[in-house]
Amino acid sequence: MKNAIIGIDVGGTSIKMGLIDREGHILHTQESPTPVQEGYRRVLDVFNQMAENLLQESAYLWENIVGVGIGVPAFLDLSRGIVIEAVNLGWSQVPLQEELEQMWQVPVMVDNDANAAALGEMWIGAGIGTSNLICLTLGTGIGGGVIINGDIYHGVNGSAGEVGHITVREQGGRTCNCGKRGCLETEASATAIALDALEQVQKMSAGPLKEEYDRMGNITAKSVIELAKLGDSTCRAILEKAGIVLGKALANMCYLLNPEKIVIGGGVSSAGDILFDPLVQAFHGAVLPRVAENTDIVAAKLGNQAGMVGAAWLIRHSREERTPISGFSNS
Amino acid sequence: MKNAIIGIDVGGTSIKMGLIDREGHILHTQESPTPVQEGYRRVLDVFNQMAENLLQESAYLWENIVGVGIGVPAFLDLSRGIVIEAVNLGWSQVPLQEELEQMWQVPVMVDNDANAAALGEMWIGAGIGTSNLICLTLGTGIGGGVIINGDIYHGVNGSAGEVGHITVREQGGRTCNCGKRGCLETEASATAIALDALEQVQKMSAGPLKEEYDRMGNITAKSVIELAKLGDSTCRAILEKAGIVLGKALANMCYLLNPEKIVIGGGVSSAGDILFDPLVQAFHGAVLPRVAENTDIVAAKLGNQAGMVGAAWLIRHSREERTPISGFSNS
Repeated sequence: MKNAIIGIDVGGTSIKMGLIDREGHILHTQESPTPVQEGYRRVLDVFNQMAENLLQESAYLWENIVGVGIGVPAFLDLSRGIVIEAVNLGWSQVPLQEELEQMWQVPVMVDNDANAAALGEMWIGAGIGTSNLICLTLGTGIGGGVIINGDIYHGVNGSAGEVGHITVREQGGRTCNCGKRGCLETEASATAIALDALEQVQKMSAGPLKEEYDRMGNITAKSVIELAKLGDSTCRAILEKAGIVLGKALANMCYLLNPEKIVIGGGVSSAGDILFDPLVQAFHGAVLPRVAENTDIVAAKLGNQAGMVGAAWLIRHSREERTPISGFSNS
Repeated sequence: MKNAIIGIDVGGTSIKMGLIDREGHILHTQESPTPVQEGYRRVLDVFNQMAENLLQESAYLWENIVGVGIGVPAFLDLSRGIVIEAVNLGWSQVPLQEELEQMWQVPVMVDNDANAAALGEMWIGAGIGTSNLICLTLGTGIGGGVIINGDIYHGVNGSAGEVGHITVREQGGRTCNCGKRGCLETEASATAIALDALEQVQKMSAGPLKEEYDRMGNITAKSVIELAKLGDSTCRAILEKAGIVLGKALANMCYLLNPEKIVIGGGVSSAGDILFDPLVQAFHGAVLPRVAENTDIVAAKLGNQAGMVGAAWLIRHSREERTPISGFSNS
């Protein structure tokens, strides 16, 4: 009886792995630091150990597993399941799908981590019941996933949804890792929010943000969000600015794709209304009512489990495609 | 034997109608002014007269016609074939599909005119062989069509591809018909180009553009393009500016959709390299090489026949969908 899927979300910091049933329920999870420094082979060993632990604690066997889906922060050759470049993992040109299939002897499917998160939200999260959505993940960078007719849309070479580098400033703005200036992620990611806060701290002699900086020696987006929630006006203004930039950028995306939902997740989305209120207001200020009237902007629901769930969906969906529910049986 | 389709492109100025075979070849065409002032009923009469003429001159009968596709400059209820609002035609809430089906007793399909033009280019024009493309029509306004997996993508309420109102200026810019400022079409449409030229004329005491204005009492985008081709530097600069704005806007669209092709048509595209060179340069300056490397920017090929051809494709495709080539027979 094959009736569960393993979903993996591998990031630069941690590996999250879940045993997931055919309806998307998470049965068990494992989490482990990513041994980036020890290289690709060592990460595969950790995958294997985590999978064994996961099966053992849930009393499943490999013969119960339909397949393994994995989301990777990478530029991929999807047709062959090859990681072309994963900067944060230090991987280049690794045949991930093939090697995992050899290791586990089950079908493996690979996609980009932001795409996996989008699929997870569509399957059992904030996008449930919709099949046309844009998902944004506001983290260290800004990732995106475009879902069209119920499946991720990859574009001609897998780059669709890479919205972090959309240019949002006509002139100036910080220089991005990509080499350009004024990218969405240099204006509204966790990194941008922390840098905005640091700039403010330079101008301050006192106040909660200054105290936080003096205590920690640094400022993170997380502390900006916490202080904003406690009412700090500087921190609120930083998040409002990010919300406005995001709202305007989403308006332009809405003209092109007219999605049913826009789902916003990632650490920065935990700011809640402080971020979402200006975001939604800027969005509606920039998009014609007729174009926006059927588009809802909602917060993601699955937190950091979206990636593993969406990775599992890749297997769920591919089984459906071949013959309906062929990979599953109740017997 | 049903082996041809009638495609109609109805605009505020003229109605174009073509008899089109199953491979997209245009067998015969008709063109007639649109009697906008005389109202919707009169336009239907003109449709009917044109169709009768078209059949007569090509020795076809209604029984040879698989169906009629029609592209309308309108916001539509696609599921019911209703024109909700067509500002340039003065139509509001008209059941176009149903009335044409009653009139002609063949299947009728309706879509937006920019979408029809995109489909025409995909079928037999600049997008031939590709199934993921963005088409821009640079005319009085700027229309767009998004083709995903070989079919037009409508979005949740039919507004996908309405790229004319993407905001391209952070601050300022001309006020658009839509009420916003700094829309793509207030910067790079034929209207915008003519207005840019008029602004330049105010500052001039002599030169070809001033002479054109003095002779005609006005400046059109067409004359700006003609003078630019003759080497006038002011007119070249106006078109270059439009090209740069378009290139940057297309770069942002490319991050979201990573299309195989971007097809640019409409009257303004007749400027050729004077427009396309700065456009392509601005595009590549704003989009990461990896994201853009498989995206070609090309000029549309069908001119003002794209709409009628794409309208015919709607019927061609709907027949394919039901059962392959069911609507057609060779007997």
